[in-house]
Amino acid sequence: MSAQPEALIFDVFGTIVDWRSGIAAACKEAFERKQIDHDPHRFADLWRDEYQPAMERIRSGGRGYVALDILHRENLDRVLDKTGLAPRFNAAERDTLNHAWEQLPPWADSVAALQILKQRFIIAPCSNGSIALMTRLAKFGGLPWDAILGAEIARDYKPRAQVYLASCAALGLEPSRVMMVAAHNDDLEAAAAAGLRTGFFPRAQEYGAAQKTDLEPSQDWDLVSSDMTGFASTLLNAPV
Amino acid sequence: MSAQPEALIFDVFGTIVDWRSGIAAACKEAFERKQIDHDPHRFADLWRDEYQPAMERIRSGGRGYVALDILHRENLDRVLDKTGLAPRFNAAERDTLNHAWEQLPPWADSVAALQILKQRFIIAPCSNGSIALMTRLAKFGGLPWDAILGAEIARDYKPRAQVYLASCAALGLEPSRVMMVAAHNDDLEAAAAAGLRTGFFPRAQEYGAAQKTDLEPSQDWDLVSSDMTGFASTLLNAPV
Repeated sequence: MSAQPEALIFDVFGTIVDWRSGIAAACKEAFERKQIDHDPHRFADLWRDEYQPAMERIRSGGRGYVALDILHRENLDRVLDKTGLAPRFNAAERDTLNHAWEQLPPWADSVAALQILKQRFIIAPCSNGSIALMTRLAKFGGLPWDAILGAEIARDYKPRAQVYLASCAALGLEPSRVMMVAAHNDDLEAAAAAGLRTGFFPRAQEYGAAQKTDLEPSQDWDLVSSDMTGFASTLLNAPV
Repeated sequence: MSAQPEALIFDVFGTIVDWRSGIAAACKEAFERKQIDHDPHRFADLWRDEYQPAMERIRSGGRGYVALDILHRENLDRVLDKTGLAPRFNAAERDTLNHAWEQLPPWADSVAALQILKQRFIIAPCSNGSIALMTRLAKFGGLPWDAILGAEIARDYKPRAQVYLASCAALGLEPSRVMMVAAHNDDLEAAAAAGLRTGFFPRAQEYGAAQKTDLEPSQDWDLVSSDMTGFASTLLNAPV
């Protein structure tokens, strides 16, 4: 890798925070309160399954930009319908459950690694989450971002090139001066196609013990590490 | 004041950072290197004098949104012309001098007060500075913002209502849940008209020892303190 990037922009759901455990924990609590017998991890997976289709309706141009908070809330309605749990949750209870997306635990190494990287680089999320969602998530988990970039800046959703490019432009940087960091190969494929640098480390437990995807880099990304701590120290010790 | 706000958004130039001392210091260094005999504080004032007219060309609709970094650079050209110093600075030297806006010293109490306020509130700049400028200024001075809001989110300039409203909307909050904090009464007048709460403390040295404006609140703002430290402790100790 030649001269170092000036900024690192990060995928968040899965790369920085453990969305599945966080959503499952919130569902478990809600289900227990209502004496509902339903596997909370299964519910979390079903909720997340609605994520890509909901964004695709926007990416395809069929619908204008709507913040992810609202898509999550709509998706919750769908999953409650599909699981037959709809009669058990009124609107206020659904709103409350939807706020679980603002309170997801960072992976154990995320905060320390971000603090290290922040010493030398501008660090910001480039997530499909809204500014409101990313701001509250950062406050909940202590994520020390320098700015909040991503989908809302671009008013479109990853992997559309505009999301990466608008995030670089908001920092006044050419894409070649920015590294997209993600535990998801498809995110990096899109960022690389838009001219950004790429950094990868796996999050092998994102989908639980049986995960089969994104365990390895699919390409020769600019920087690959086996975990985020190693990623941060490699980048910080690389020649400027 | 009734229930507390959830977020505080801040004016930055003058309220959080001492732009005049910072710009004058950068000019002094540049002038000394070139053996130019010109009062650097006078030059800083002239540069800032171009600020409102440049934004007004955008606010009036005569020009589309252009980031403040570019306006500052154009304004520098104007001031160099007016002072007869234009022949002494080539384009690269002007670019370098323009970066002084990214390296302005916070007032002595700003960082500690923001750290206190960050414990309870979402804190973000609502400045006319761009995301790139605000991000670098925060990194330079250690300003612990939770997000970067303001003009670029709205693609317009204060005191247009849209800048305050877009900043609230980006946090998913009604204006009544957000307090605009500034050492400038006109900023608060515009924010109050847009439905936000208002907080004021003076920065009596912003324009130097002879300053005559904004030494006192012009109205009964929601919270008024004599300094930022007092402002922070009053707000933090107010009933929730």
